[in-house]
Parts: sequence; structure tokens; C-alpha cells
Amino acid sequence: AGMEKGRVAIFDSTNVSRKFRCEMVEELRSVVQSRSNVILVESVCEDPEIIQHNISATERSMPDYKGTESREEVVADYTARIQCFAARYEPLGDEDKVYSWIKTVDGGQQVILNKIFGYLPGRIASFVMNLHTFPKEIYLSRHGQSEYNLAQKIGGDSSLTAHGREYAVALAAHVHENVLRKFPRARLWTSTLRRTIETGELIRHEDVEVDGQPWITMRPRQWHALDEIHAGIFDGMTYDEIAEKDPEEFAMRKKNKLGYRYPRGESYLDVLQRLDTIVHELERQRDPILIISHQGILRIIYAYLMIDEIKSREESPHVAIPLNTIKVLRPHAYGCTCENLALLKSKAGPDGQTEKALDPPSH
Amino acid sequence: AGMEKGRVAIFDSTNVSRKFRCEMVEELRSVVQSRSNVILVESVCEDPEIIQHNISATERSMPDYKGTESREEVVADYTARIQCFAARYEPLGDEDKVYSWIKTVDGGQQVILNKIFGYLPGRIASFVMNLHTFPKEIYLSRHGQSEYNLAQKIGGDSSLTAHGREYAVALAAHVHENVLRKFPRARLWTSTLRRTIETGELIRHEDVEVDGQPWITMRPRQWHALDEIHAGIFDGMTYDEIAEKDPEEFAMRKKNKLGYRYPRGESYLDVLQRLDTIVHELERQRDPILIISHQGILRIIYAYLMIDEIKSREESPHVAIPLNTIKVLRPHAYGCTCENLALLKSKAGPDGQTEKALDPPSH
Repeated sequence: AGMEKGRVAIFDSTNVSRKFRCEMVEELRSVVQSRSNVILVESVCEDPEIIQHNISATERSMPDYKGTESREEVVADYTARIQCFAARYEPLGDEDKVYSWIKTVDGGQQVILNKIFGYLPGRIASFVMNLHTFPKEIYLSRHGQSEYNLAQKIGGDSSLTAHGREYAVALAAHVHENVLRKFPRARLWTSTLRRTIETGELIRHEDVEVDGQPWITMRPRQWHALDEIHAGIFDGMTYDEIAEKDPEEFAMRKKNKLGYRYPRGESYLDVLQRLDTIVHELERQRDPILIISHQGILRIIYAYLMIDEIKSREESPHVAIPLNTIKVLRPHAYGCTCENLALLKSKAGPDGQTEKALDPPSH
Repeated sequence: AGMEKGRVAIFDSTNVSRKFRCEMVEELRSVVQSRSNVILVESVCEDPEIIQHNISATERSMPDYKGTESREEVVADYTARIQCFAARYEPLGDEDKVYSWIKTVDGGQQVILNKIFGYLPGRIASFVMNLHTFPKEIYLSRHGQSEYNLAQKIGGDSSLTAHGREYAVALAAHVHENVLRKFPRARLWTSTLRRTIETGELIRHEDVEVDGQPWITMRPRQWHALDEIHAGIFDGMTYDEIAEKDPEEFAMRKKNKLGYRYPRGESYLDVLQRLDTIVHELERQRDPILIISHQGILRIIYAYLMIDEIKSREESPHVAIPLNTIKVLRPHAYGCTCENLALLKSKAGPDGQTEKALDPPSH
């Protein structure tokens, strides 16, 4: 049944022997047509530091060890498991030249791609190459309230309101206190739109030294790929105006929020596509990253990271990303946790906007 | 001096010995800071078929052999060269683990990436992996005249005029006769905009068999990345209107056509960025490809392929891509040739538009 829902399936097992792997690939050929549509992925690690790190990461999050009390017990058991597999494992090599495979050595120090052809296999290879198990925090924040938010308009490129600037102050204070002290190498990504740039503008950029290297804290990086979903001909209108002017389009969008493409604009599926680069970069980076972006975009990034919570693509456009709040995500070996920190206590803005204006319309 | 103009430099030499390579990398460290900023690229080929193919490709286009009359002479000389290098060449391997390198085996059958970290090195690796020396033709065509062209408006998503449809007829006839007969596997890429889709609409999609596999001829593939440069707030206006309404913007664009970004729209540099995927796909494909797109986009693709003719990025937004014409590009080992085929003889349209309307405003 899953076959109809996607183009990639993952078969997770230890596949210790060459004989078993060959049989498996040949067996699958009846389903996938060509041998090269089955990609074996092997991760070889002999760096004791990485192994040690992986054991502790696993010990903390692996479902198998839930309820096990003693840390030593878990480490001993897991180390024994590794040794057991290492003794029996037949690595991919010259004898497997006829198959398609990706082999990463010591957490990406070396990567071997064998018979990896075509667009999707290439993207899969690039994705696998970017993966690592070093823990890092990811912070998601919407921009502060913008002029368009206040006017209930979608899209545009307006500046922050006084209330929005209040959030920028709170965000900078939070980042200085809670992020930069722990992680001087934390990074800052925004979209190219004014409201996200202004929201991050009060964060300090200091010349410091990290690990003996010069470093500018939170040097902002602007990504087009983080721009809000483009509403095409409806850009700059309120939802009431759209519903009035074009009830048919309005209804179509309600019916299929994921696939609906604004006339001359984008659909959530288009956004998914353009976030491909962001997701690869997010996986690759070992430093914590603060992403200041837009509700439509953060929904997709959140859904990608919180795969245990958001079970289908169809749910992702409905995720709530509250204003004035920073989401702290901590991916680990077996999932991801999320903590919400509301940085502005009062829901009422300084200039007495209504509740509605503080919860602006979103795509 | 070149250092100020780009972020990547290529040092093309045979680098036969390990000792020389090490010395070179260590020497360069004073310029590039880190060892991992020097990437060695090695292409190993022991497949006799590919070697034979490369020799004939080289024989036809290598500058060294210009003026040499006898084909046999060239093949003999080149084969001797290869044997001479093969005997002395020390391949990259375990002893070079400390360096960053990309090794491709037998034209991409296997690829080894050693210490390739970061965004740009990753893109370079992906680019190198996609390269091949099999000859293919690339056809570039603008869409036929659109309603907006006729009205001298930029942007939009209008349909073809009668004259534009005339071009679609001529293009389909040309493709059936001159492309599909020779290359049944030729591919068709358009943008997502109506005028390019309609221009390719009369090309036949037949179920055929190629190399024993089912194949649909010229099955259209729509790419957002091939959409025209987005004029932002000026979308749908004529250039006269823009010059009148916003002379300052108009002047800024004149001054720096490459870097100028339309308010809420794109610059040519943005387009360069989003064509990254297209260029990788273009290199990877072994089948001929017909690209029906827009002047702004085709300029960049043309400039990329015709690097001997278009010497700088600054020139690329000024390349003329004539209407009603198909450009046949033939990349070869040492450059690319281009042939222009005007498919509509008469410049006067069926409904008597002016010359100006047949040469519509372009970005």
C-alpha cells in the first residue's frame, strides 16, 4: 500500500552477508525492474571516537533500551552487539560491483558511490553523505508581526510593526543568553524578505575566536528557499478579499491545501521541492541553526524533523507554528524532540491590536 | 586577478606523481587556508570502449591535433600518450587520505569522495559525477509569440498568438523530421508557463520501444527553474510604463543588468542560482534535450554552454536569443558549437503585427 504514496522505500536491516544481500536484490528486481533501483547503503566506522559517541547517543534514545536502568549495562550490551556484527560482516567491495551502493566511511570522511545514476539516486546519495549523528539544536522562529499581518494581508514584503520589533528584541535577548553562550558557532538563516531579516537584526554579530579560528557570531545568511509560499495573483490581498473575488479558487485551496497552487504562485508541494536544499544543508551542518522564516515554510521544516508527530505530507500544511515563540528541536538517533518557548508573555500588543491581528492569516 | 571574480579556480595538469600532488597542495595552503579547500579530481578509466570513444572524440576536437591530416596518426599518438601516462601514474588511494579528492572510475560507474565537506565542495562533487563525454545535441528554443509579447508586456502567463502557434507547428515539424528520426530518446523540457507548454504541444508523444524498453517520445517535463526571470512588481507592465512609473529602477537595471533584482522579483544572479539543478541535469543526461523556455533563461544556459564565446557573467544577460529560431548546440570535449535554424521564414506575422511586436521586449 505504501508503494502508491511515495517513490522511495527503506528496508532497514543488518544485511550481514554478501549472499543475503545478493538474494535480496535479485528478489526485489521483480518489483523494481532494474538492479540499479535497489541501493545498498553501508556505513563503515572504525574511528573509536565516533563509535563511542554513537554508543552514548544510542544509549540515550534507542527504543530497545527503554527502561534499562544502568548506563554501563547498555554500553556493554551495545559494544558486544557491534563486535558480534563486525566479526561476521562482509563489507561491500569489488565483488559487489554489479550492484548500486553507497558506502560511507568514518562518518563521511570517505564516500564511495557505485553505479549511482539518475536524479533521485543522486539526491539520495547526497542526502546520505550529509547525514551525521552529532547532536545539534535547531531553532525555528516565525518573523515578528509585520504591517501586512496587522492588515490581515498575505504575502508582500512589509516591515515589522512595533509589536513585531518587540519580538525582535525578545528574540535577540534569548539568543544571546541561551544560545550563543553555549554555542558560539550557532548560525542564523533568514528568508530574503524584510520581516525575517528585521526579526533577526538585533542579534549581535561579534568577531570572536572559536577553536582558534576567527568567527562572526550569527552572521546572517539569506535564503530565497526560505521565502514564504508565493500567493501569485493573490499576493497582498486579505483572505476575505480572495474569498469574495474568487470563491472558486478559495474553495479549491480549502479542499486540497497541499497540492493547491496559487494562480501564478506556489503550492505547498512546490515549497517542499524548493526546501530540498535547505533540508540537505540542515542535515549537513554540525552547528546549531536559528531559522527565522514564515509559517508556511516552517510547517514543512517542522514536519520533516518531527516525522513521528506529523505522519503524512497532507498534515504538514496544517501544523500550527505560533507567533512570538521559538521552537527548540533536538534531533537524536531515533527521532526528534521539540520544546516551545513563548518569548513574549502578553498576547496584547503595545498599540492595542486585536487578538486577531496578533494571529495573522497564514497560507 | 581572477581570484576576485570567482570562488573556484581550476588547475588543469596531469599531476602524475603523488609527490608532486602533495607538494602542490601544501604550496597552495598559504592561499586557500585549509587543505580541504584544494580538491584533487582523478578520472580513472579502464573500460576499453570508453577509452576508444574518448580517443575519437579527442581526435576530432583537441587543439593539439589541429591541422593533423591523418586520423590514424592522431589515434596512434594519443594512444601512445595514454600508455605513457598510465605507466607512470600513481593513483589516489589510502596514502592520500589526508587530502580532499574526487575519483571517478570508468565514466562514473564508481565515484569515491574523500574528505569532501561543505556546500560548494558537495556541489562540485555532484557536478563532476554528472559529467560524461558522450556526445549529445541540445536544442534551445524560445516560446512562440505570446499575447503579452504582442502587447509589449513583460512577464505574465499568457497564451500564444496566432503567430506563436504558427511557430509551434513549425517546431513540431522540425522535431519530428530532424530530431526524433535520429534520436527517438530525445527529451522535452519546458517551463511551467503556458507559452512554453503550448509551444511544445504539437510535438507527438508516441509509445515506442527504444533498446527493448517502452518509451514515450518527448514526454514533456515542466521545470519551475525554467520559468522566465520574475519581474516582481513590474510583472505585466510594458517597459515604457516601467520607465515612466519608476525611472530610478529602470535606470538601475540599465546600469547593472546582471545584479539588478526587480523589486519583489528576481535578478539574473538569482536565475543563475536556480539554474544550478538544470545545468547538473543537462550534464548528466545522455539523450538530446529540447528546452523550450524564455529569453532570460536561455541566455544563461547558452552562456554556460558557449563559454568560449561568452567570456564573462556580465555579458550573459545581453545574449540575443532570436524568436522563431532553434539553436542546435553540440558540446564536445574542448568546447561547444552552435547552429541557428530559423524555422519561420517570414518575419511578418499572419495578422500583420509590426516588426516590433515580433521582437518583443525582453528582460
